[in-house]
Amino acid sequence: MKGHPIYVMGRFLEDFAVGQIFRSGPVRIDKEQIKAFGAEFDPQPFHLDEEAARDTIFGGLAASGWHTAAVTMRLLVESDLKPAGGIVGAGADEFRWPRPVRPGDELRTESEVLEVRPSRSRPDQGLIKVRTTTLNQHDEAVQIIVANLMVPRRQQGEKIALGSAPKPGIC
Amino acid sequence: MKGHPIYVMGRFLEDFAVGQIFRSGPVRIDKEQIKAFGAEFDPQPFHLDEEAARDTIFGGLAASGWHTAAVTMRLLVESDLKPAGGIVGAGADEFRWPRPVRPGDELRTESEVLEVRPSRSRPDQGLIKVRTTTLNQHDEAVQIIVANLMVPRRQQGEKIALGSAPKPGIC
Repeated sequence: MKGHPIYVMGRFLEDFAVGQIFRSGPVRIDKEQIKAFGAEFDPQPFHLDEEAARDTIFGGLAASGWHTAAVTMRLLVESDLKPAGGIVGAGADEFRWPRPVRPGDELRTESEVLEVRPSRSRPDQGLIKVRTTTLNQHDEAVQIIVANLMVPRRQQGEKIALGSAPKPGIC
Repeated sequence: MKGHPIYVMGRFLEDFAVGQIFRSGPVRIDKEQIKAFGAEFDPQPFHLDEEAARDTIFGGLAASGWHTAAVTMRLLVESDLKPAGGIVGAGADEFRWPRPVRPGDELRTESEVLEVRPSRSRPDQGLIKVRTTTLNQHDEAVQIIVANLMVPRRQQGEKIALGSAPKPGIC
């Protein structure tokens, strides 16, 4: 179990399969959170103040896309995806915000495994490609990201401790 | 000047040209910031605790990629890019974290305009494609994003108030 003692309870490359779906519970985004994130990282009127936001392209207060992305990450960490070694992204093949997040929206995630493959350069590692859709309370997509995550391969003696890996499409 | 009074001082689609480069000043990322962001949005050991981070793939404390992205946004807002209407992204064509951000790193951005085009569906809007590279104090890229930003077109009577638009590659 050397190399990743923290997440030894998580899934290894061999536990992932194309078609698996992992979901997170919802979290509510309120206007104070939108403004606090905006003030720290994206200080533009449409993320800071209802009145000033009215005359912008958003027509009202909206969360920074990076706030949506950060909340999505939190939901992913709390979801049942749990790769051994943690959720470590190398980057994204696709990344879109189809609509803004508004105060009071409740966000949840659905992540589908699109690809599972061993690393060419590192025999102890592999990559999974995962499409994570962040949905609001109306089941509208507010963010779609197709990310490549690094996942360790199982070494001798390691066991999955989360129960069985979910079957494609049913978890 | 209807529709975007806040950012009327910024650049319209007509003020952007392929090859323009916009830079930001640097900002230092300290370990308290890395841990605070991690605790709120990406609670994994390598973003939370030096000791726990040692045995992970990062080999030590590293900023969440979403923290790097959020800081990059802040730097972009403070840079001279300043589209009229604000920096409003529809998504990204490319998004990578080539290496982690470590405590004490100083980050800055370089943004190059790759494409400028009117919107097909909205005559008052256009899109610019911008590659933003976030660099550390060793001039190593820690994030590369190619984003599509929505920019209003100039309407009659509107003037740029930032001085002339920069010439390609020299600003």
